[in-house]
Amino acid sequence: MHQVAILGVGQVPVREHWDRSLRELAVDAARAAMEDANVTQIDALYVSNMTSDRLNQQRHLGVLVADFLGQWGVEAVKLEAACGSAGSAMRQGILAVASGEMEAVLVVGVEKMTEMPSEQTTAALTTAADADYEIEQGVTFVGLNALVMRRYMHEYGYERRDFAPFALNAHANGAKNPNALFRQPITQKTFDEGRTVADPISLFDASPIGDGAAALLLVPAAKAPQAVRVTGSAVATDTLAVHDREDLLWLKAAEQSVRQAYAQAGIGPEDVDLFELHDAFSIMAALSLEACGFAARGQGVRLAQAGEILPNGRIPIATMGGLKARGHPVGATGLYQLAEATLQLRGAAGAAQIEGARIALAQNIGGSGATIATHVLQRP
Amino acid sequence: MHQVAILGVGQVPVREHWDRSLRELAVDAARAAMEDANVTQIDALYVSNMTSDRLNQQRHLGVLVADFLGQWGVEAVKLEAACGSAGSAMRQGILAVASGEMEAVLVVGVEKMTEMPSEQTTAALTTAADADYEIEQGVTFVGLNALVMRRYMHEYGYERRDFAPFALNAHANGAKNPNALFRQPITQKTFDEGRTVADPISLFDASPIGDGAAALLLVPAAKAPQAVRVTGSAVATDTLAVHDREDLLWLKAAEQSVRQAYAQAGIGPEDVDLFELHDAFSIMAALSLEACGFAARGQGVRLAQAGEILPNGRIPIATMGGLKARGHPVGATGLYQLAEATLQLRGAAGAAQIEGARIALAQNIGGSGATIATHVLQRP
Repeated sequence: MHQVAILGVGQVPVREHWDRSLRELAVDAARAAMEDANVTQIDALYVSNMTSDRLNQQRHLGVLVADFLGQWGVEAVKLEAACGSAGSAMRQGILAVASGEMEAVLVVGVEKMTEMPSEQTTAALTTAADADYEIEQGVTFVGLNALVMRRYMHEYGYERRDFAPFALNAHANGAKNPNALFRQPITQKTFDEGRTVADPISLFDASPIGDGAAALLLVPAAKAPQAVRVTGSAVATDTLAVHDREDLLWLKAAEQSVRQAYAQAGIGPEDVDLFELHDAFSIMAALSLEACGFAARGQGVRLAQAGEILPNGRIPIATMGGLKARGHPVGATGLYQLAEATLQLRGAAGAAQIEGARIALAQNIGGSGATIATHVLQRP
Repeated sequence: MHQVAILGVGQVPVREHWDRSLRELAVDAARAAMEDANVTQIDALYVSNMTSDRLNQQRHLGVLVADFLGQWGVEAVKLEAACGSAGSAMRQGILAVASGEMEAVLVVGVEKMTEMPSEQTTAALTTAADADYEIEQGVTFVGLNALVMRRYMHEYGYERRDFAPFALNAHANGAKNPNALFRQPITQKTFDEGRTVADPISLFDASPIGDGAAALLLVPAAKAPQAVRVTGSAVATDTLAVHDREDLLWLKAAEQSVRQAYAQAGIGPEDVDLFELHDAFSIMAALSLEACGFAARGQGVRLAQAGEILPNGRIPIATMGGLKARGHPVGATGLYQLAEATLQLRGAAGAAQIEGARIALAQNIGGSGATIATHVLQRP
């Protein structure tokens, strides 16, 4: 199998982009990644997106992006795994390079969510869960996460405000990232005053949607010895419905995919310098830290309370703001994570730079832990 | 690159399946393919689908199918390229095996379209075209194909009834396929009496939607010397919008992908024994025959009129009924084509068997020629 390197990175700031269409956002990020890599012709294009069929009346994004990028003729397809779409697209891009057939593969995640009334956005997001056995009961996607968080609090004796360190860290870090949606630090008081979205999830436990696009240009590592390398790549699944899990408080697909990714890279959690995790809700950040070996069961929140997730802590997370502050344009999020991790390993993360970062972990989650893509990136 | 073989084939009859849900259809086909291959554990699952987010309120089909198939934990993702989704998923399955990382890959196409009012189905299908520049004008997907057919008739001097041989052949062949939606041969009179769907496309120029699922189990060819091999695999794109093409009557992405696939297989059109083409509309069948080297420009219809597309003709097409008579469950169609081609090469196509078939071509189209996946299969 050919080793893969990330030669180019492109991002669009996460915003409400009233003046840019779905295709324009995607092409902006794609072009930036190609320019960063100094590549003008690609062999294949993988596009990730979750909601465009409903919120933009547009499907068939592979050819849409290829066409408007001026890469006429190129092989192109869209991948979807709910909010884990981008991590899954990255995985396919890697396999395409690994097959030996491709020399330059572009992976683009794009989502444009802020044009439609919010009830339509909410309805589009619920399709990530099980339509017949979950959504049919009237529960929303945030409602499912609230059930998990409530159980976690009950089991391990936490209060709502114990989760604040995740939001405080994310917003402090987002303030240093020009591409973040929210660029203001928040205080414990702000967190405490956050209204309830779905009890016990407060406004500051939940990530905001947004419009955005991020892209990576992948090449065989042998062609780019100076570029950041992908040394681990794995996708695993759990049951789709949360109620089917033996253990509500364990992200089995995170554990399985991270175990594979660590093994491929020949590393363990102790070697990881930063972790771009999927903090769509603060409960998911806690569970990811536990499943990936950074905290014992029920101790993810305590790790955050101890300051170990801060930029100077044992395992910095959401270093550019995470889903919470950078924003969560769902089908693009996994590529923002990977783009940010790449910048960190290049030493190009600006004010958000984690000093001396050599190994980064990125984890993208679809549904309530149903599809999880985990990647290990390393400085060459 | 590892050579790939098709070890298992599974199909569900194309019907209005009132008693089977989306996930049940997918699992039925998947299980049949695994049983056919005598494989109980897979390494990865690729699911293709176009409309489930709208017509079944369900996205995230990778994990949905993995979960209900009992393949807990397995890597899984959904791919979408409109009606070319299944051919594109096959391509990714092949690259996954070719990467050397996977030993058993399941590719499943599924679509359940007949539960919703037909105007919703029509709206879901239009998202294959360009929302901003085509659909915004009020044109439907069949309307776009009607424009192409009208131009073809004008350019080459054909009448509507000249296209009848495509429908007659498809329905005669579908009558021999137990999985086909329509199993009655039709006559020229039936064709002539077909009502107009979108002038000049008649009812018998257009394929019917349906509920269905088809699956293939892929393995490295070295592990299955007796199995049908994939010797060519390519995906190419054109402009998304039909009006952006330099030449309205030439399927550039068909030409490009078939050229690549022929080159990989070391064959030419003269070596092909049967061609499962994308006869969503009879005009697309004519254009595919021309782009793939079986007829000169404007001669695809004449080839059909000369009987050369019949089972005993020069290049049999739609040998199990094609999209026209087997039915067109959009995101599953490309896998039905490949499943049927595999059965033909195994000599297991029953009454529809093409005698002595050794090499088959399968071509799946997304949009009006925007994404085209072409595969060459060969008897070992």
